[in-house]
Amino acid sequence: MTSAFNVPDLIRKKRDGEAHTRAELEQLVLGYTRGDVPDYQISAWLMAVYLRGMTAQETADLTLVMATSGDEMNLGDLPRTVDKHSTGGVGDKTSLILTPMLAALGLTVAKMSGRGLAHTGGTIDKLESFPGWTPELREDRFLAQARDIGLALVGQSKDLAPADGKLYALRDVTATVDCLPLIASSIMSKKLASGAHTVVLDVKVGAGAFMRTLEDGRRLARAMVDIGTRASRLVRAVLTDMDTPLGHMAGNSLEVIEALDTLRGEGPQDLTELCVSLAVEALAAYGEDETQAEARARATLTDGTALAKFRAFVEAQGGDALLVDHPERLNVAPGREDVLAPASGFVQSVDALAVGRAVLALGGGRERKGEAIDHGVGVELLKKPGEAVQVGQAVLRLYHRDGRGLDAARTLLEEGLKVAEVAPAAQPLILDRVF
Amino acid sequence: MTSAFNVPDLIRKKRDGEAHTRAELEQLVLGYTRGDVPDYQISAWLMAVYLRGMTAQETADLTLVMATSGDEMNLGDLPRTVDKHSTGGVGDKTSLILTPMLAALGLTVAKMSGRGLAHTGGTIDKLESFPGWTPELREDRFLAQARDIGLALVGQSKDLAPADGKLYALRDVTATVDCLPLIASSIMSKKLASGAHTVVLDVKVGAGAFMRTLEDGRRLARAMVDIGTRASRLVRAVLTDMDTPLGHMAGNSLEVIEALDTLRGEGPQDLTELCVSLAVEALAAYGEDETQAEARARATLTDGTALAKFRAFVEAQGGDALLVDHPERLNVAPGREDVLAPASGFVQSVDALAVGRAVLALGGGRERKGEAIDHGVGVELLKKPGEAVQVGQAVLRLYHRDGRGLDAARTLLEEGLKVAEVAPAAQPLILDRVF
Repeated sequence: MTSAFNVPDLIRKKRDGEAHTRAELEQLVLGYTRGDVPDYQISAWLMAVYLRGMTAQETADLTLVMATSGDEMNLGDLPRTVDKHSTGGVGDKTSLILTPMLAALGLTVAKMSGRGLAHTGGTIDKLESFPGWTPELREDRFLAQARDIGLALVGQSKDLAPADGKLYALRDVTATVDCLPLIASSIMSKKLASGAHTVVLDVKVGAGAFMRTLEDGRRLARAMVDIGTRASRLVRAVLTDMDTPLGHMAGNSLEVIEALDTLRGEGPQDLTELCVSLAVEALAAYGEDETQAEARARATLTDGTALAKFRAFVEAQGGDALLVDHPERLNVAPGREDVLAPASGFVQSVDALAVGRAVLALGGGRERKGEAIDHGVGVELLKKPGEAVQVGQAVLRLYHRDGRGLDAARTLLEEGLKVAEVAPAAQPLILDRVF
Repeated sequence: MTSAFNVPDLIRKKRDGEAHTRAELEQLVLGYTRGDVPDYQISAWLMAVYLRGMTAQETADLTLVMATSGDEMNLGDLPRTVDKHSTGGVGDKTSLILTPMLAALGLTVAKMSGRGLAHTGGTIDKLESFPGWTPELREDRFLAQARDIGLALVGQSKDLAPADGKLYALRDVTATVDCLPLIASSIMSKKLASGAHTVVLDVKVGAGAFMRTLEDGRRLARAMVDIGTRASRLVRAVLTDMDTPLGHMAGNSLEVIEALDTLRGEGPQDLTELCVSLAVEALAAYGEDETQAEARARATLTDGTALAKFRAFVEAQGGDALLVDHPERLNVAPGREDVLAPASGFVQSVDALAVGRAVLALGGGRERKGEAIDHGVGVELLKKPGEAVQVGQAVLRLYHRDGRGLDAARTLLEEGLKVAEVAPAAQPLILDRVF
């Protein structure tokens, strides 16, 4: 390796609040990815980035450098490609509904998705509720399926933006995770490397989300949209409330059932509205009138076209498509136990983090990568914030297998449920849009 | 190891500008020294310290933790112990003169000293100009000699404050060197572990020093004095100019010759005054009246008592004491070459860094630890800033061995010498005192 720069000099530059050039970021980030720059220098640099920040141009350059640190998908031949990313939530089955909607609307989704970790779920885990369905496709088949159906979905390749994985692992142990340019570049580097021309982002805000305040959420959304613009992509973001789990279901098979309801036009209102909004952003990015886009998006959930795309997609990747039309046959754990209202009044809040952790306790998630999970367990919100309840009425339902993790899950949910005499102020789901 | 704290939480605390407790600093610094806390976490923490700073209490606690990270010298039985530290300069042979002065004044110097690195010299290297002199003494002999003569001087033990060496190596490659609490704790941890009750500090300020401005120098001095106070030691600092080398000689044997001149009361004025000032600080720390202290200190250079202490000290550590009285027999390289005044006028400046690098080029210093050096080479300042010169008159003299490094040394000195028509403003050597 020929070093154009001395690494301590680059650290010093950021330490003193100066902006890096793209070539400097290449030396740091690609050098680290290759193993030429040691972790102890990068962690000092990350702390300097944390405390000194990065300009919009630096953040975009960093993202591009990370995006080119490994393999890059070439979707250039596919029409109107679109990708979607959520900053992570509980009960967030949006991708299961949105991606077939987008395919039904004539866009192409050739997407990589992740597995769940800790209290957050992952789209791949949810889809594996369909016996036989596989997230492993060879690239040519992946591209062919995306062209044929408009929808193909595979697991995240470790060769895609490997700099991100390495940097994230280091940030995790050096208190440099919650730093806007680093968060934005981490998310967007994978989106850029995945190749879609348009990206719609669902930036979650609230107690159960990484961004606690709307202002922080807006800044992150702005940073990611800016990165997209500087990388000649179209990126649009919606900011959505994540104090409460989305919809009524949390847990893999339970969420698939709720997604299928939604794809049949019978889903919960919050979930339906979010999916329609994200679809509108994708169509608007391709220049479609928003009013017309909204009508078209909504129609895919009532005319069966989104469901048909989903059915074709599950089948194409080896899943049992019969279950799409018979969700009652999905493997749901037989154990049931309800959490009751401790008082009469209105549900004030159902803490999203508590629900996520309860699913984890029941065996529906993993603490560490690679652990097997039970797709059938989960939590159902029988009542959502704002609904009236009587003392002793069931508010939350646990789906457990032979009582595994039940006590821990119940305790979490009891702590996460707040009932009060007055109804909480109505909170809109969609808080803002950034594009 | 039982961890009382989670390391990322400690990094987060400093990142957010909070102050550490002593127990937290113990976990970080002792954990790192033992190898339980990895370097990539400590380097992120060091950058957070660099950018967020430390309170006086934290700096003192950090210093105490570092001081107790390895062996500690117990000088408790010795009377009126005093140590000295200089923040590093060129031509700084102060320790050779000051330490026998202090012994002659009834104080005890049981001191560890370093070897030179890069452009700065080291006391141990200078003393090795005396054939047979050794910096390796067993502890019991070291203490006995200090009691008998009042002066014993050994090499720095790597078991003394090992945290400092490890942290310094990491700071060096992560752009976290020039950070006041880290500099102050690095210097003072070794001083505290070395056991002397009183420490006099010579904080160099100027182009050839680590601290470029008087204000920075004052802050460092204040931080080190504060550490001493909080550790129940007496620490006093003088701030001295380091734009120009001290005295006229740079290079090991040449500096010894100049030190012997000074110990005979025939040294250059700047060097003599600095040694007297530092001796006054040491005596004042033990409560002596300053006017009386100055007279007593000055007398040791004219009545032969300091020279006698030096002779006894060289002999006690195996050196050829005959050379103390016959400095002309010291091994000085035979090659001579002069740098001439490029114009008539006044010497404006002789860059200390250039002189230090010239000595290094001639073979009188080392780039890496462990390299052998030539004690006989060096540079003599025939004229110092403020003195009048005629064009073509010799201003600097190089002492070289067979022309080794001569061209490089000459180029450095020619660039470092400034002659101008008007005399430079007189600059006092001693800029301030802090105690």
